Amino acid sequence: MSLSEGVEWSLHCAWLLAQVPPGKALSSRRMAEFYGLPPAYLSKLLKSLVRAGILAATTGPRGGFRLARPAAGITVLEVTEAVEGSGPLFRCTEIRQQGPAPALKADCRRPCGIAQVMHDAEQAWRAHLAATTIADLVGQATSGSGGRVRAWLDRLPEHAAPTRPGLAIVDD
Amino acid sequence: MSLSEGVEWSLHCAWLLAQVPPGKALSSRRMAEFYGLPPAYLSKLLKSLVRAGILAATTGPRGGFRLARPAAGITVLEVTEAVEGSGPLFRCTEIRQQGPAPALKADCRRPCGIAQVMHDAEQAWRAHLAATTIADLVGQATSGSGGRVRAWLDRLPEHAAPTRPGLAIVDD
Repeated sequence: MSLSEGVEWSLHCAWLLAQVPPGKALSSRRMAEFYGLPPAYLSKLLKSLVRAGILAATTGPRGGFRLARPAAGITVLEVTEAVEGSGPLFRCTEIRQQGPAPALKADCRRPCGIAQVMHDAEQAWRAHLAATTIADLVGQATSGSGGRVRAWLDRLPEHAAPTRPGLAIVDD
Repeated sequence: MSLSEGVEWSLHCAWLLAQVPPGKALSSRRMAEFYGLPPAYLSKLLKSLVRAGILAATTGPRGGFRLARPAAGITVLEVTEAVEGSGPLFRCTEIRQQGPAPALKADCRRPCGIAQVMHDAEQAWRAHLAATTIADLVGQATSGSGGRVRAWLDRLPEHAAPTRPGLAIVDD
């Protein structure tokens, strides 16, 4: 069992978007380029993050994705669940109630020891993921990686200040 | 993402085998019967538990499976990993090193914040599963379920004391 690669990609994209200046956005194509990922699959993934309320999408020539909420309010658990779903890792099918000596209904009001330990372990996993936000991840990154991201963002033509027609240099 | 049903089945079978009297065994067919499970798939699963050193198999008319070690020495984590493998839930593919602004090799000697939080969460999950043994699960079961298991085991013809030829009643 393992999480899909979409979890890694989504967390990295959220981390990247947290560093995009206010009022700007990043297209799916740009993010695929930044991480060397397949654009079509990444685009599908980003749409699922929009559906989960983690990203917001804007259209137009300078459109793209941005975080839908402050990075400090988006947890690693939310991003993971947006990709993998929020269902349990361990699905109890109550096999104790099957066969020639089934458990009594009265004994099955509570989960059995097996379901309980699997559930408790899973809660510990989720609690760890819920305790870290995208803002925490940005804060933990090395100054070098933050600098590289800012330099790359600054070079994007779509992030350059729009030329105001009134200020255009005209050759006549 | 979810664990396969084989984890649930294996843990329940280990729990059942922990209650089989010393020197006796349970066939795959009997365990499939007890839990109402598909015999062919269960048989395959039990063989993987033998390969993992959790169960031992004996042959012959009274043969079958038994725990390879005391139930107090077999953890829920071991059974889970025998079925699912011991690989990580989150596989980091180091996408930070790809694209037009890759992370420096020197910055990649340690996992990034994303890989670290996913790893820490997974460690918490494994620690919970490693802290519970099959003996703990038997101890936690209701007295009713233990009684039902013992009654079912006592009724199995292959668990009856073998008739010693010298004591057979002969009608002549």
